[in-house]
Amino acid sequence: MLAVLCGEDQARDLTESPAMRRIASSAVVRYTGEAGLADALRGADVLFVHDFLSRAVPEAWPAADRLRWLHIASAGVDPVMFPGMRDSDVVLTNSRGVFDDSIAEYVLGVILTFAKDLHGSLDLQRQSRWQHRETERIAGRSALVVGTGPIGRAIARMLRAVGMSVSGAGRRARSGDPDFGDVHASDRLVEYLPAFDYVVAVAPLTEETKGLFDAAAFAAMKPTARFVNVGRGELVVTGDLVEALRTGRIAGAALDVFDTEPLPVDSPLWTMRNVLVSPHMSGDFIGWRDTLVEVFADNFHRWQTGAPLRNVVDKQLGYVPSDR
Amino acid sequence: MLAVLCGEDQARDLTESPAMRRIASSAVVRYTGEAGLADALRGADVLFVHDFLSRAVPEAWPAADRLRWLHIASAGVDPVMFPGMRDSDVVLTNSRGVFDDSIAEYVLGVILTFAKDLHGSLDLQRQSRWQHRETERIAGRSALVVGTGPIGRAIARMLRAVGMSVSGAGRRARSGDPDFGDVHASDRLVEYLPAFDYVVAVAPLTEETKGLFDAAAFAAMKPTARFVNVGRGELVVTGDLVEALRTGRIAGAALDVFDTEPLPVDSPLWTMRNVLVSPHMSGDFIGWRDTLVEVFADNFHRWQTGAPLRNVVDKQLGYVPSDR
Repeated sequence: MLAVLCGEDQARDLTESPAMRRIASSAVVRYTGEAGLADALRGADVLFVHDFLSRAVPEAWPAADRLRWLHIASAGVDPVMFPGMRDSDVVLTNSRGVFDDSIAEYVLGVILTFAKDLHGSLDLQRQSRWQHRETERIAGRSALVVGTGPIGRAIARMLRAVGMSVSGAGRRARSGDPDFGDVHASDRLVEYLPAFDYVVAVAPLTEETKGLFDAAAFAAMKPTARFVNVGRGELVVTGDLVEALRTGRIAGAALDVFDTEPLPVDSPLWTMRNVLVSPHMSGDFIGWRDTLVEVFADNFHRWQTGAPLRNVVDKQLGYVPSDR
Repeated sequence: MLAVLCGEDQARDLTESPAMRRIASSAVVRYTGEAGLADALRGADVLFVHDFLSRAVPEAWPAADRLRWLHIASAGVDPVMFPGMRDSDVVLTNSRGVFDDSIAEYVLGVILTFAKDLHGSLDLQRQSRWQHRETERIAGRSALVVGTGPIGRAIARMLRAVGMSVSGAGRRARSGDPDFGDVHASDRLVEYLPAFDYVVAVAPLTEETKGLFDAAAFAAMKPTARFVNVGRGELVVTGDLVEALRTGRIAGAALDVFDTEPLPVDSPLWTMRNVLVSPHMSGDFIGWRDTLVEVFADNFHRWQTGAPLRNVVDKQLGYVPSDR
């Protein structure tokens, strides 16, 4: 029996999608919102967390009496990485790969927005003001991509393709990486940060990466550096970031994720002129929801036929280990 | 004797630049604004049009009694392509090459702005509104670059590097071009326009290209197409473009050049939500003015030593012919 946790606004599209109809023809499917999750989990073998923003799984977990597999429709698995899940035998898979190139395009877009002052042009346009400025090149500028999973790799390839100089930061230092060249150790970040014009956060949220970008990290960056976060808001100590931006300790930030989402109306980030805010959408290309369901359906077919599942998360690490 | 036409606001930086000081040590240099141009031209062998926005050269031209060479600090030479100049023996050179990669970065930036709705995010941010949207990919999308000179080539290489499918349009159709693959004939543009998601105008302004983008051209484009102009405003019939944007005949435009500059305050382009206006700055990276003077100084050294000049414009074509 398959339980599907899904948001109210998505329920209709999801149940009527070709992939879910296909599944329903060969399995019992129980759709539920957050309130009914515990009931739905009772007797379920599989849980598909379609509503990947939900934080309801830990509370309903005791009802999972025969669950063997949990699939989440996102790349980050932090919403389901609680002790009861981590210590269980339940297999966890994610939607690795769906967002890689789309997020890479977004990152390049915000880097070019900073370099070419496109946000400045738009602000001036809204006032019908013609004001010539000189702007920056991106060729030859350096970027550190913190997070060496498939999204980080797609970002690195994209930035290299347009002439930027890219390094990575990951769990262990190494050189000769095909996408990054040099990979620095994330736990020694402050030593490397001073070298980079752009710092892109795309690491999975784990105990090790939580709060990685704090006052010390921002203090280590160039005053001209821009910080881009397409990972998780909790990678950042938000107060420290606000302070670094306010005091000009760093030059700007493009933020697609926040420790509280939606970003509260009274957050100072909304009104800072050197900040670009977007509502957790960097990877969400037109068609992404269908693609996410297809990824689950493919894995569900593997489950039914006994084939090995794709994108199995190492629950101790908190992400799918890289082949490299 | 060298005459230098230069704007008042640039005079000091220019005269004190290392390159112009070097020149002044071995040649008589006469700096002038527009008002004194005729006087300065009398007896001058060389004219350096540093103020490339000036339209003063044609009127002062009769005073040029021994001019042999005119250099302009821009890529486009249309401000000095009047009959008296075209039919004279005066050699014309331009600043080809300086802006290529910078403009290519700008073009990619506005394409990503459209695809990722970055301007929409900024408008929502100004209202502190969190509103998720799904956005477009650029990989696999098609772009037609109209203009196959070095700037168009740099644009083509940049867009290909990020996974777009690029063709060119130039004076004559051909295939197998190293940067464009297929090059279509500009005079049959409407036949090819329906195939492209992005249309980038970067052709030199000549009798053939003036008004190339008119109602018929916009009618031939996809309703989802975006038009980017980094060439010259006069390549476009502005009224036709406004109408195409207003009626949704095309989806958007990013315009860095206009037939009247600065763009008049009452232009409807300022306030259209699907239009990005920038003030003729797409190529103007930090340091561009110094680079332009260095390009002239290099050519002036060639002139003094009898070496062949670089970037000699074919005055019948109106641009430096490509090697290809």
